[in-house]
Amino acid sequence: MTIAPPAPADSTTVLPPPPLEHLRSPRTRAVLRLQQRILSATREFLAADGFTELLPPVIGPVTDPGARGAKQVDVDYYGHRYKLMTSGILYKQASLLAFDKIFNIAPNVRLEPLETATTHRHLAEFHQIDVEVAGATRDDATALAERLVRHVFASCAADMGDELALLGRDPADLAALAAQDFERLSHGEAVLRLRAMDHPQSQDAELDWVGEELLSRESVRPFFVVDYPKGSRGFYDRESRTEPGVLRNFDLILPGGYGEVMSGSEREHEYTRLVTRMRETGENPAKYRWYLDVARAGIPASAGFGIGLERLTRAVAGLDAVWRASSFPKIPGVVSA
Amino acid sequence: MTIAPPAPADSTTVLPPPPLEHLRSPRTRAVLRLQQRILSATREFLAADGFTELLPPVIGPVTDPGARGAKQVDVDYYGHRYKLMTSGILYKQASLLAFDKIFNIAPNVRLEPLETATTHRHLAEFHQIDVEVAGATRDDATALAERLVRHVFASCAADMGDELALLGRDPADLAALAAQDFERLSHGEAVLRLRAMDHPQSQDAELDWVGEELLSRESVRPFFVVDYPKGSRGFYDRESRTEPGVLRNFDLILPGGYGEVMSGSEREHEYTRLVTRMRETGENPAKYRWYLDVARAGIPASAGFGIGLERLTRAVAGLDAVWRASSFPKIPGVVSA
Repeated sequence: MTIAPPAPADSTTVLPPPPLEHLRSPRTRAVLRLQQRILSATREFLAADGFTELLPPVIGPVTDPGARGAKQVDVDYYGHRYKLMTSGILYKQASLLAFDKIFNIAPNVRLEPLETATTHRHLAEFHQIDVEVAGATRDDATALAERLVRHVFASCAADMGDELALLGRDPADLAALAAQDFERLSHGEAVLRLRAMDHPQSQDAELDWVGEELLSRESVRPFFVVDYPKGSRGFYDRESRTEPGVLRNFDLILPGGYGEVMSGSEREHEYTRLVTRMRETGENPAKYRWYLDVARAGIPASAGFGIGLERLTRAVAGLDAVWRASSFPKIPGVVSA
Repeated sequence: MTIAPPAPADSTTVLPPPPLEHLRSPRTRAVLRLQQRILSATREFLAADGFTELLPPVIGPVTDPGARGAKQVDVDYYGHRYKLMTSGILYKQASLLAFDKIFNIAPNVRLEPLETATTHRHLAEFHQIDVEVAGATRDDATALAERLVRHVFASCAADMGDELALLGRDPADLAALAAQDFERLSHGEAVLRLRAMDHPQSQDAELDWVGEELLSRESVRPFFVVDYPKGSRGFYDRESRTEPGVLRNFDLILPGGYGEVMSGSEREHEYTRLVTRMRETGENPAKYRWYLDVARAGIPASAGFGIGLERLTRAVAGLDAVWRASSFPKIPGVVSA
């Protein structure tokens, strides 16, 4: 049982229509209602599990540097160079000073490369369901993430029959997906699978988009890829103490060609490790002053993840392109509303 | 029965402490939990009333120009000059193409003048509970706003006894405030009241901060000020057709010195009126291309409002300064986390 693959890329669907056409479409309305059910199901689930929601900042002196080829956006904050959040990871870690289990519904802006305008899976402005748990391990985080996503699938299947029908989706397929365990495979295993499919994936790098989509299309259920190699991710993904060079992190990849919808990890949180990892990844520790001040005094150990909300909505709704899951979509390089 | 006035301004509380001290404070934790109850009460109330929540953009080619002395923040979006949202009003109007009743929990950034750093009521980054209703009048909007705020007060009084106690608040005071009707007075009446208090308020301008605080301190219940003079607000506040020069708008001011927490209005929505009002307020219509394209084809008539979430939290929690209602507060001009 798998989610039906998205419709093939179609030149008429590469770019969103103007707001008048997009927002009046019954399909857009159904997608936006479905997205809100994804969020309410997320809030129900996390609140019942003892999480506190917090409102994350949208600008700050520093942001996550690890956004895979995307450019950060500078803003002039009273003469100081601030950034729009590409992800709120540093703030999530600091928020654990207040509560042990927190989450944000966080807006992020990433100036993705122009060639991503036609991948059907990149938006320059998007949202993450950002979750962080003090004292958690990577395996705690994947277990929580799996329960959360399955709850979201089950809630949409149970409550959003009209919207799913309008979008040509069978709620039973979504319910079946919610009923299955997610697979787990290591980055090394993913590389071997891709090479067996004649895709030249490096064992030292992030899975490339083509490779990720290949794995996604051949899979019949969601799967975590764990243990990415050091160098492929940001300084905050914790390096294994027993297997140096391996990060205690994960992605969640959905079947049917929808690809990656979530990244997470155990976090580096000790001051000296953070400074070392920043230097190894080419980041200047001086930029991260407020964060390192907190780390020096003691950020809790933690693990967490960020779910791409529009990507998850795309998969639940069965959309050909991620922009259909945004009311005012921003395609990389394209000026719109 | 009134909300207890905030503690007097104290030089030790003008600036927030670093995250380590702020986020570990039991008072901060209580405030942030209270803020989440304000949001969940808002969502319950609006969902039960048929509203659809939408995620608003944080950047766009244009934003609300009417932000009372605050500067907009420019961002470079692939070589195009975009803005951070100072308020999502234009997007709220366009969102009515999809649903008749919508709301957003919207992050906004306004570079407020440096002298607002010590007003205890300005943040450079804050959130609005942004509500818009197709076909509604100004009086529909104030009635809805009153029901919503009273529901929020009642919900916090009923459910947040521990947090209120820790903050030195009596839930019975909040429950009493929720039980009262809100007053309504016109801008002209507010001007007369202020002049009777020897405060030189212009009848052609926005109530100034000192005047607003005077009215707030002498009041025993929340009150709407309606019918602001044209020239004091943005082009989207609808001008009365029977009383030219008077806007069909409102502010909500809370008692106890907390001041204004909400602005709203009936909206201009006809293309030619919008262009005229833009020109009258010194705005270049060419900047508003996407919005005017939608207006030419037909934005629904509407009314709505935006509630300053941190200000509302401040009043409910009885805080001396609004920054205490933010996990990573940004004071105008001050570099922090």
